[in-house]
Order: sequence, then structure tokens, then C-alpha cells
Amino acid sequence: MQTPQFAAPVEQLIEYFQRLPGVGRKTAQRFAFHVMSMEEADVTAFAEALVGAKKGVNRCQQCQNFTDSPLCRICNDHGRDHTTICVVSEPADVAAIERAREYKGVYHVLHGVLSPLAHIGPEDLTIRELVMRVGKGDVKEVIMATDPDTTGETTAMYIAGLLKPFGIRVTRLAYGVPVGGHLEFADEVTLLRAIEGRREL
Amino acid sequence: MQTPQFAAPVEQLIEYFQRLPGVGRKTAQRFAFHVMSMEEADVTAFAEALVGAKKGVNRCQQCQNFTDSPLCRICNDHGRDHTTICVVSEPADVAAIERAREYKGVYHVLHGVLSPLAHIGPEDLTIRELVMRVGKGDVKEVIMATDPDTTGETTAMYIAGLLKPFGIRVTRLAYGVPVGGHLEFADEVTLLRAIEGRREL
Repeated sequence: MQTPQFAAPVEQLIEYFQRLPGVGRKTAQRFAFHVMSMEEADVTAFAEALVGAKKGVNRCQQCQNFTDSPLCRICNDHGRDHTTICVVSEPADVAAIERAREYKGVYHVLHGVLSPLAHIGPEDLTIRELVMRVGKGDVKEVIMATDPDTTGETTAMYIAGLLKPFGIRVTRLAYGVPVGGHLEFADEVTLLRAIEGRREL
Repeated sequence: MQTPQFAAPVEQLIEYFQRLPGVGRKTAQRFAFHVMSMEEADVTAFAEALVGAKKGVNRCQQCQNFTDSPLCRICNDHGRDHTTICVVSEPADVAAIERAREYKGVYHVLHGVLSPLAHIGPEDLTIRELVMRVGKGDVKEVIMATDPDTTGETTAMYIAGLLKPFGIRVTRLAYGVPVGGHLEFADEVTLLRAIEGRREL
């Protein structure tokens, strides 16, 4: 633990920047000094954007992705195949798959993965909402597209088990995505291959 | 240029995060999603910290470092040697040198370096304020501690030229700091060696 080195308001800002994923003390300092070199109007707008993103955004009633309307843009799109649901752990994964421009179905965002060590159980994810969507009867296939690591695999297998009784296809992304990696950082081609080569669970 | 993938308020926040130094689109996305998973009270406090750091902080009347009072903590400290001024380009450099716990003098923050390519001239830095401080007559030594890269060296040589007529010692940090590197990221021991081995300019 270091003693505060800057004026209290600066230390406070550094502390908040440090809470962002992957940001340490020195990066947080750089961010804070950058903010102080910005125009005051820009800083105010940045602050408003922070609060605006938190307050102005809710979860899509259907796929649970972040959106500023009751249904997200994808769930609202009648041109998409609503009988195929691609299940991902985070909103950023939806963006990654959309960049591949291959997938025409809809999504379901779990907002996490099962992790006994982190005390994250099925009730902490949107698994109940997924089962209810499938239970309505129009779904033909669910593609499990959680990260290809231990917790992602576990979550995929757990959900596959819950969905099997509905008699639908439950598939898993092909191992085109690098094992142990994060879906979010996969390139478009890899994701395309992974979707094409998906297999039965 | 990518098409917006998220709800407008989220895109807006991502855009602001991308303005931070070294933050690309994917990192900005991660930051934005992290913010949306934070408690609303914490997001509001983060936003207030942003504005607070910008509005509640001014430059120290003497050394030009950021502070929330007229004089910064170091300039206000009568236990420090006010006859020795260490000239740095950024506030983060003051923090770096303080971490070495070796230097007992005071500082002067230039808020940049001379850079003809970026149209940054002497009038854009706090060089006038430094010359005025030295002109008051109590200063015995000025240590040029700008980054050991091209613009840092140029700035050090330029300022040394301005200060020579005052008949004081003008020294430069020893090349203990790695050439081409950034002072801010130097470790404590390297900085300590660099201060001990400082040489006449």
C-alpha cells in the first residue's frame, strides 16, 4: 500500500480508474492526468456518459443483452432466425460474433459463467430466462458459445443438460476458438470457422 | 470504422474511454461493460470523481504540480531543500522520484516537453515560471529530470541555456534511467542511481 502522492481529488479519481478491469496504479495515474488535461466540458460530458450508460441502459426482455429499449436491436429484427439461440456469457461476445457477419439467429446473454470458486451459481446467471424462452416451443437449436475454458465448458454442459428434455438441438462452438482463450478477443475468421463447425452436445 | 454495436449510451461511454491514453476499442468495451455491472451509486461517485479531479485541482503557484491548495504539499514542506529544484515534464514524474525516497529538494513541473513537430514551444510549458523562480535568487541547483529521449534532452538543453546566466548549478539526471524510456516507469533503484550520479550540464 502506497501513501497518497497527489491531491485528494486526484487520488480519488485514480482509485476509481483502478477498479476498471486490468488497470493498475500507474495506468490509473496516466488516465487521471489525462482527464486533468482535458477541457472541462469534455470531462463533464465523460461523467454524464458514465451515468448515462448505467441509467439509460437495461437488459433486453428476451436475450438479456444491454439495450436502451425493452427489446434489443437483434431481438427486434424480424429478418433474423428466432428459432436459433446462441448462448454467450457476456455482451461483448455478442459484438464479437456479430463482427463475423455469419450468424443470423438470436442470442442469449448469461452475464457470467458458473463458478463454484467465485460462488456464482445458476441463479446468478440468466439460465432461468433461457429455459423459459426454450419452453415456449419455437426454438429449434441452442448453440452454446461460452468461452472455451473450464468454467465456460462447465456452464455449456450444465445448460445442455437442462435443455436436452425439450428435444431440441443443443450444439457447441467448434474448437476453432483457441482453447483457454477468451471469445471476446477471437478474430472474425476464427469465429466464422467455429460457427460453421459447431457440433452436437 | 465499425458500425455501432451497442445501445447509444453504451457507445457514447465506449467512445470516451477510447480517448484515454493507450485504450483501444476492445479495452474501452470492457471498461464500459464493467461500469454497467457496477452499483449505480458507485458509478455516480466515479462520475463525481471525474468532475471533482478536474474542477477541484489547480496548479501549485510555485512548482506548477497539480494540487487542491494554493501551494502543493511538497512546496509547503519547510523540511525540504528549497534551493534545489528538480525539473520534470509531468506530475507522474514527481510521484516516481518521490517513490525513490532519496530526493529532498523541490520540483518544477513543465507539463510537457518542447516538440516542434507537435507545435509545442517554450510558451506552452511552464518555463517562464521556472526562470522567475530561479530569478528570485535563492536557488543553488536545478536538476533537469526530463525523460531521457530526444524531446526530453532537447528540453533539458534549452532550459539549461536559459538558466546558465544566473550562475547556478544546472545538472542532468545520470543515464541510470534507460535511454529512450519513460521516467514514469523507472524503478526506484534506477531513479536513485540516476539522482546520485547527476552531472553538470
